[in-house]
Amino acid sequence: MNIDGQPYRTIFPDPDGVSVQVIDQTRLPFAFELKRLATLEDAAVAIRTMIVRGAPLIGVTAAYGLALAMRADASHDGIDRAVATLAATRPTAINLRWALDRVSTNLRQVAPDERFARAFAEAGRIAEEDVASCRAIGAHGSQVIADLHRAKGGDRPVTVLTHCNAGWLATVDWGTALAPIYAAHERGVPVHVLVDETRPRSQGAALTAFELNGHGVPHTVIADNAGGHLMQHGDVDLCIVGSDRTTASGDVCNKIGTYLKALAAHDNGVPFYAALPFSTIDWTLDDGVKEIPIEERDGREVTHMTGRLADGGFATIEVVSPGSPVANPAFDVTPARLVTGIITERGICEASAEGLYGLYPERRKAA
Amino acid sequence: MNIDGQPYRTIFPDPDGVSVQVIDQTRLPFAFELKRLATLEDAAVAIRTMIVRGAPLIGVTAAYGLALAMRADASHDGIDRAVATLAATRPTAINLRWALDRVSTNLRQVAPDERFARAFAEAGRIAEEDVASCRAIGAHGSQVIADLHRAKGGDRPVTVLTHCNAGWLATVDWGTALAPIYAAHERGVPVHVLVDETRPRSQGAALTAFELNGHGVPHTVIADNAGGHLMQHGDVDLCIVGSDRTTASGDVCNKIGTYLKALAAHDNGVPFYAALPFSTIDWTLDDGVKEIPIEERDGREVTHMTGRLADGGFATIEVVSPGSPVANPAFDVTPARLVTGIITERGICEASAEGLYGLYPERRKAA
Repeated sequence: MNIDGQPYRTIFPDPDGVSVQVIDQTRLPFAFELKRLATLEDAAVAIRTMIVRGAPLIGVTAAYGLALAMRADASHDGIDRAVATLAATRPTAINLRWALDRVSTNLRQVAPDERFARAFAEAGRIAEEDVASCRAIGAHGSQVIADLHRAKGGDRPVTVLTHCNAGWLATVDWGTALAPIYAAHERGVPVHVLVDETRPRSQGAALTAFELNGHGVPHTVIADNAGGHLMQHGDVDLCIVGSDRTTASGDVCNKIGTYLKALAAHDNGVPFYAALPFSTIDWTLDDGVKEIPIEERDGREVTHMTGRLADGGFATIEVVSPGSPVANPAFDVTPARLVTGIITERGICEASAEGLYGLYPERRKAA
Repeated sequence: MNIDGQPYRTIFPDPDGVSVQVIDQTRLPFAFELKRLATLEDAAVAIRTMIVRGAPLIGVTAAYGLALAMRADASHDGIDRAVATLAATRPTAINLRWALDRVSTNLRQVAPDERFARAFAEAGRIAEEDVASCRAIGAHGSQVIADLHRAKGGDRPVTVLTHCNAGWLATVDWGTALAPIYAAHERGVPVHVLVDETRPRSQGAALTAFELNGHGVPHTVIADNAGGHLMQHGDVDLCIVGSDRTTASGDVCNKIGTYLKALAAHDNGVPFYAALPFSTIDWTLDDGVKEIPIEERDGREVTHMTGRLADGGFATIEVVSPGSPVANPAFDVTPARLVTGIITERGICEASAEGLYGLYPERRKAA
């Protein structure tokens, strides 16, 4: 999508042919900078420190990371070590493991001296497939928004609440939860987005707001606490969130706090959708709350915040009473019973095994 | 309660006999400073800028503010002007209006030259009554914690989640939601408090954590988004929140985000209590969501945060993507159906008209 009128992707091959460029998302929304990844370690650091984030983008970055590793050590051991290093960067993300499996399987089939080129090309294919997948999610999901616009009388924008950043910055382009919004906007359906701040890392306030600003989509940033109140007062027509991992039964693991919004949507009759590519679905899991391990992140994300000073400089400040312990679980699981539907690149289905196997019948055979 | 071993109240008469001292809560948790209020305008500014906050403390401060106004103009017009000025500082707080009604009615009965002394004494009585009321809330509520401790086997602390600050800093002493926690702690029942950060103003991370630290009560600060996940995993035994206004039917208006925690508690079978003094109950209201006006506060509370730099200085930083609009509703309403019980100075009742009129039968006659 566009930043200041110029089209970008979040990750793309460097003209040198042996490295990739990414947008440094830790500097957004106040500074726009590209970062070059040339080694396995560059890619692992980029994922671990959230220079890149968002399940699909993590997957593509890991795929490129595995390719970059082949330049240093293209042996079987080298593949194993690179996969282990990259898999350990973010334990919850299923896309990451999926992408590593795909690239590593592929490159074991060729001789060591062909492995870098093979892996680099395969990573590029994963990126292109992600863009196509997100575009399709956008097309399917925008129909929900268009239908709601008509159902509500067609005379005011459809208000969509979203949590965290599942926009194009979380993917290669388009996004997942935001793809239907961009697609609706481009087909002329008026949309207004309520953007949850998304503490502790504020991806909503920093990244989703930045994206929507860049694309000219009307929006309002709110504290994570505000969504329930707004739903009680009829100010939210629809919720769309992304997912980091979805069970075969339709339980949606997403950024911490998503579950609270799903409860409020359910309590107020507001439709609640999760938009995600097939690579996010973990067909081995049935009970998301019991089975999905939840990453506990550094408490400093809760105790400190970084932002821009009035003079344009940056500062990190302490915002919790000194000496108080903190906890920082990064994700939660929204049970399928609270999810109106799941929007994927193949269409929209009920959040259930029946719904998901209906869209992916080839998985039913495998089950 | 204690700060660094020294007992304090949040508001107390200055030795000069014609002004009051308050703890400047905008400087907490990083600096502890007292502020002297000598005029009506001092009191109005203290309430409006949240130097003092919390429904009961706002009421006491307004009462003293009306007294201070009598030193400048003790006429009937002076009373009217002072009441109007103070009532306008925080539109949602019912205690504020209740305290102003009580003091103004009282002081109209005496000659102008007796009005300052009369109002000052009456404000002092309101403060003493608030302390007694909070102590009683603590005694009743601590029984809920003690019962849970026994019911859970008695071998681990009772984990209590609270939102915002309804501690002693929100009252004159003891607090409302935290009074049962302090009382349980003092009677030897082990308690661990989960403290919601409470964006946008972070009263939980700044004030509740500061209080609990000061009193040695074990606690953990969490992002507002985390509570639902923790409840899903059995990590919360009980929720206790305060209230800024409660309807006769038991709907609880409290800091924005409370409703989301009540939904999660309900979904996970976690008891959810509101602790509040009688002055918080608005007997004229039945439907909290429809009838309670919700204060919309300055968007800067969402876009900017103030905290401590590594060098000990203070800074205000921008944390939202520049140019994005924000909304900032300050309270929400938790419907009575989600509230397990209401803890008042008279005991604990069901969150319903029957429950509340049962504790306050004299109100039933008036209804």
